[in-house]
Amino acid sequence: MRLSRDVAVIGAGMTRFHHRIHADKTGRELFVEAALEAKESVDNGIDLGDVGALYLGNFSSDAFEGQAHSAALLADWLGLTPKPATRIEDACASSGVAVNIGVMAIASGAYDVVMVGGVEKMRGLSTGGVTDTLAMAADALYEVGAGFTFPGLYAALATAHFAEFGSNWEQLAAITIKNHRNGALNPKAHFQAEIMETAKRLGERNNMTFDDEMDFLRSSLNTVVAYPLRLFDCCPISDGSAVVLLAAGEVARKYTDTPIYIRGMGQASDTMALHDRKELTTLRATKLAASQAYKMAGVNPGDIGVADVHDCFTIAEVFATEDLGFFPKGEGGKAAAEGRTALDGDVAINPDGGLKAKGHPVGATGAAMTYEVFKQMRGEAGGRQVADIRYGLVHNVGASGATVSIQVYGR
Amino acid sequence: MRLSRDVAVIGAGMTRFHHRIHADKTGRELFVEAALEAKESVDNGIDLGDVGALYLGNFSSDAFEGQAHSAALLADWLGLTPKPATRIEDACASSGVAVNIGVMAIASGAYDVVMVGGVEKMRGLSTGGVTDTLAMAADALYEVGAGFTFPGLYAALATAHFAEFGSNWEQLAAITIKNHRNGALNPKAHFQAEIMETAKRLGERNNMTFDDEMDFLRSSLNTVVAYPLRLFDCCPISDGSAVVLLAAGEVARKYTDTPIYIRGMGQASDTMALHDRKELTTLRATKLAASQAYKMAGVNPGDIGVADVHDCFTIAEVFATEDLGFFPKGEGGKAAAEGRTALDGDVAINPDGGLKAKGHPVGATGAAMTYEVFKQMRGEAGGRQVADIRYGLVHNVGASGATVSIQVYGR
Repeated sequence: MRLSRDVAVIGAGMTRFHHRIHADKTGRELFVEAALEAKESVDNGIDLGDVGALYLGNFSSDAFEGQAHSAALLADWLGLTPKPATRIEDACASSGVAVNIGVMAIASGAYDVVMVGGVEKMRGLSTGGVTDTLAMAADALYEVGAGFTFPGLYAALATAHFAEFGSNWEQLAAITIKNHRNGALNPKAHFQAEIMETAKRLGERNNMTFDDEMDFLRSSLNTVVAYPLRLFDCCPISDGSAVVLLAAGEVARKYTDTPIYIRGMGQASDTMALHDRKELTTLRATKLAASQAYKMAGVNPGDIGVADVHDCFTIAEVFATEDLGFFPKGEGGKAAAEGRTALDGDVAINPDGGLKAKGHPVGATGAAMTYEVFKQMRGEAGGRQVADIRYGLVHNVGASGATVSIQVYGR
Repeated sequence: MRLSRDVAVIGAGMTRFHHRIHADKTGRELFVEAALEAKESVDNGIDLGDVGALYLGNFSSDAFEGQAHSAALLADWLGLTPKPATRIEDACASSGVAVNIGVMAIASGAYDVVMVGGVEKMRGLSTGGVTDTLAMAADALYEVGAGFTFPGLYAALATAHFAEFGSNWEQLAAITIKNHRNGALNPKAHFQAEIMETAKRLGERNNMTFDDEMDFLRSSLNTVVAYPLRLFDCCPISDGSAVVLLAAGEVARKYTDTPIYIRGMGQASDTMALHDRKELTTLRATKLAASQAYKMAGVNPGDIGVADVHDCFTIAEVFATEDLGFFPKGEGGKAAAEGRTALDGDVAINPDGGLKAKGHPVGATGAAMTYEVFKQMRGEAGGRQVADIRYGLVHNVGASGATVSIQVYGR
């Protein structure tokens, strides 16, 4: 894939991902909060009138808020009207795909600047209601009808991976600990050091070491959700929004001296139902989308210094780091347990805490990943800053891998 | 707007729009039926492997079928996997907008051929359930919460138009009669001469003249839905799918000797809620999107020989023909009553029967309009063929005008 024009990120904003603090807000309010922060983040200023179009990732405001047609509505609330506003829905990859659509819209010549956002206001429903709603992203007839929801689907993937490669739950727990530690450094994260906080509330000691945390995660307090996945293997249900501003290469420097370019991108699909796949220990769509993105960017996995990958469940981070080529197949869990994915590891995976600790308002996740990689590559990530990044990567997965979008970012 | 590459339609297919005949089919089956017809329609043949990506317009398979993430699912059922598959949702303009996205994807250089489809399987719900689900395309907090559904919103627009311009319900009834007569010539239409059929079933005479039909529509058998709109002013609830294949200009002639080019396109948004608009007798988004599309194509409204416009209610066709510039403001109803929008009129409006008679499976409508204009411009429209067309136009509206997409087609 070769695009007709270069495209760069020139600004990014996001709400905190959380539940309680957003309890009284609607999706439209969350989006406006993130969009205004994105606007303010543009170094040399930007007028909303410069924005040619809005591409909005949203999974199901229909089911969560009784509100469809959300792109036009949110454009209206932000003051973008009468600019074109388009909603993209590809399950949990909605705003990752929206970034690709935004890039193509600019590359086509149609616009010089576009806004790409994502939003999900999920907590109006009960946990069970959210779980059922999210299950609509799987095959409603053949998977959900048979009793599957997403914890079960990812538990099946984990079981297959454990069986084929001898990977194990302790490796997943190491990912939990890493991502919660990273989240503790991220003021936008849903959970900020919540393992320790939870443990403290439950009467455990302060100042837990890695071994203490592992002991806590092994305890019955960390209840099994879908074997082998326990509560702390699952991302929380969060509300939130994230927004990025994209500009054509030739105008980007008008807005900022440090644009971050989309050097490569990819997207692929896979069978919706797990039972139709030839193998259960890899997400083929990740491999294909990554291959497109690496080729377009002219880079190898080893060139990536920071990656936000889709860890809706801890096992998904194992799949991602293997399928993206950071580690050999079967060794992603081991690499995480050895600290090779920490902020100072071979490749920093999910420095923002990942979906696990940062939260996962599903439609907002791809845009929030882009926010993080943008901040990291500009050296603006504060206490969680990763050193010496040449390239960054965003990996956003829809459902159990039927959609994957990837971007490779460079300077 | 000027795009980096030319883009043409090279094939199109659609299911019949109907309710009963699709009662046992799922959305995925409807889509595959339309997609295979589109594939077969490509004169020199096409391999599905040539398709670079799928853009799918769908309003709410979530609410209608309990199935989100429908683009990846449908790609899977058609055999497009692992190609990228993206769902676009902009209410009733979902697949009209998807056409624009498909054009930009090709113009960006990302793909040479893309598939753009639309699908809606609505009739699993009751009429009331469908009406409530469609209402999610309006402002859930401020319009729906106040009691509005779409018949009411368009009734408000009709009332404002009657008051300002002295237009009247008889003009709307003339549109009903025209669109049902056109639908009678379209084997894909939901209603084929249904006014006469209905009248016959209700004991009225055979072989009704225009005046007989008008008398029937004036009678209490044509019940008021939302004053001044009666039953026959409202499009039916239909199931169906439509699919078009787009190709870059430089490869289009490999597939067909008669590609139909997208010479212009536009998209605009408006406030979601009617009460936020300065005027209620025009859809500003139609005017803005049309202005973009005409300018890009280098044409004037008078150059358009055939137009598929969004007549979810008869009054919407009046708004469309005025806001698209075919007739002066306030004179769209009069023009229709004078026969100027008939197959042999100044401009043939909705030769396929329009949403009114062809049906309106909402996510499929924009793609089905494209199907019709493609067939018309290739001279393949059978009994409803319009003569001497230089340019064709597709006008697709989301909700009460918060989204409008337009394409201008030429050879």
